[in-house]
Amino acid sequence: MVSEVEKFLGIDVGGGSLKASLIDKEGKVYQEEAIPTDRFWDNSMFLTNIHFLIEKFQKTSFVSIGIGTPGPIDIPKGSIIRSANLPNLSNLSLIDSIASQYKVPIHFNNDANCAALGSYFFNKDAKVESLVVITLGTGYGCGWVLNGKIFNGYLGNGMEAGHQTVITNGALCGCGQRGCVEAYFSTRGLLERFREKTNISLSDGKAFFKLIERKDEDAQDILSLGIEAFSNSIRNIIHLLNPNKIILVGGLTKSKDLFFDRVTSDLDQIVFPVLRSHSKVIIGESIAGSLGAAALGF
Amino acid sequence: MVSEVEKFLGIDVGGGSLKASLIDKEGKVYQEEAIPTDRFWDNSMFLTNIHFLIEKFQKTSFVSIGIGTPGPIDIPKGSIIRSANLPNLSNLSLIDSIASQYKVPIHFNNDANCAALGSYFFNKDAKVESLVVITLGTGYGCGWVLNGKIFNGYLGNGMEAGHQTVITNGALCGCGQRGCVEAYFSTRGLLERFREKTNISLSDGKAFFKLIERKDEDAQDILSLGIEAFSNSIRNIIHLLNPNKIILVGGLTKSKDLFFDRVTSDLDQIVFPVLRSHSKVIIGESIAGSLGAAALGF
Repeated sequence: MVSEVEKFLGIDVGGGSLKASLIDKEGKVYQEEAIPTDRFWDNSMFLTNIHFLIEKFQKTSFVSIGIGTPGPIDIPKGSIIRSANLPNLSNLSLIDSIASQYKVPIHFNNDANCAALGSYFFNKDAKVESLVVITLGTGYGCGWVLNGKIFNGYLGNGMEAGHQTVITNGALCGCGQRGCVEAYFSTRGLLERFREKTNISLSDGKAFFKLIERKDEDAQDILSLGIEAFSNSIRNIIHLLNPNKIILVGGLTKSKDLFFDRVTSDLDQIVFPVLRSHSKVIIGESIAGSLGAAALGF
Repeated sequence: MVSEVEKFLGIDVGGGSLKASLIDKEGKVYQEEAIPTDRFWDNSMFLTNIHFLIEKFQKTSFVSIGIGTPGPIDIPKGSIIRSANLPNLSNLSLIDSIASQYKVPIHFNNDANCAALGSYFFNKDAKVESLVVITLGTGYGCGWVLNGKIFNGYLGNGMEAGHQTVITNGALCGCGQRGCVEAYFSTRGLLERFREKTNISLSDGKAFFKLIERKDEDAQDILSLGIEAFSNSIRNIIHLLNPNKIILVGGLTKSKDLFFDRVTSDLDQIVFPVLRSHSKVIIGESIAGSLGAAALGF
């Protein structure tokens, strides 16, 4: 009798879709399914679709289900408090609902923490004692994997590093406060600062970086300040936590040629000498959120 | 036969003296000794005096020796890399020297970490799962006690929260970089910013807060910016680590009536709602550094 490889189901609640992957501990994918999300889903429609998605994996057995979703969430309660992309969700008891149908352990965390765990397990450069992963996309997300475990903090709110103040009384952030690094270095932050300065609304990050390539001075100013703010946010994480590695992932890293050299040269100046060679900062391959979510069950 | 209470020796390497306390686990002090330090001590004179100090405790037996000293230190090597107050010290192998004479476990950490551990064990309000202690004196020190253990980071350099940037490209800090919170809210920071603005060198923090009481406008401006920078540094610690409690100790807290209400009202505005009631910020009684150092052996 051949013993079956253990399989883990991971679900990523993304902006555009619910995506599920069935994988083993090596990250080998056995089945993948996705359902497009609809902005108008309420709690009940969301649950119907999640159940429908999981049912697609009925043919195989899996040892656990892991779910990653944007915050704010309440891990002990297993609920999504609310969601920026799905504004009609409110205090959704996600885990109870799934647990009523599936008798396997169900794990739950925010998407940035799942991204960090995904990197830890499936990026060979990331197997270090203390790993910080920064996801640079629409926003600035962050997760910390210490000794192979996510640092959850209180109810899963640990490492909200995008909402650290790097310019006291600075620019207005999406969170309603001023001076967060996310307001300077994330797609939303760069576009907002550009709009503030020029009154021009760009469609996306690609349009912004096209202006950088064309040496548009306004865009260059915005990017320069963004890089400084970003470098200082990394300095702060290094000075507090001394991780072995900080890995940058996410959509913004596609434009790494336009910013990463300046980040590393900033850090060579502003990080304490004893930590400069210890805490390495690199660009990493983005690991699918559903793989990180599946890894919650490892 | 009455079993003897276990006793722990703790030594604090302070700016003005080497202070040693012999205590039990309850913090009861059995003997205390001090030797004034001399700015001109080199490695060998420092070691002579440390040995002389420990010899004063020869009449009692103790189960461990703990030593707290300002950074930068190298915990695995047990050495003081250098010392701002004792500039002639350099790469001093402190622990090896003591271990050659005393056959008890010897523990070593930086003074801010010892202050955090001292608060954890000897301040009844501090017994929480995740405790951050900020020491506000000449500088801005910080330590994090998680599940009863100091978070050391790399070689003991964890939680250098005084050197987190809260104003990118801001004022020059004693560390040589710009915009650290210590450059805005510590005795040295407040005096430096005041000198920069007015060309007047004040002798100490007391003189600065006397000006505040007299409603000196320059001093008030400096303090206001300092409070904003400080509140944002606490915001950052809360957003990253979600501690149950942050305790402020040290000389500056004697002037708490002149700043603490504004810190708490700032935090009510700028901290994420879910963390406002979770992460409490209070002023705490300062625990002697030698008690915190002794607690390294618990």
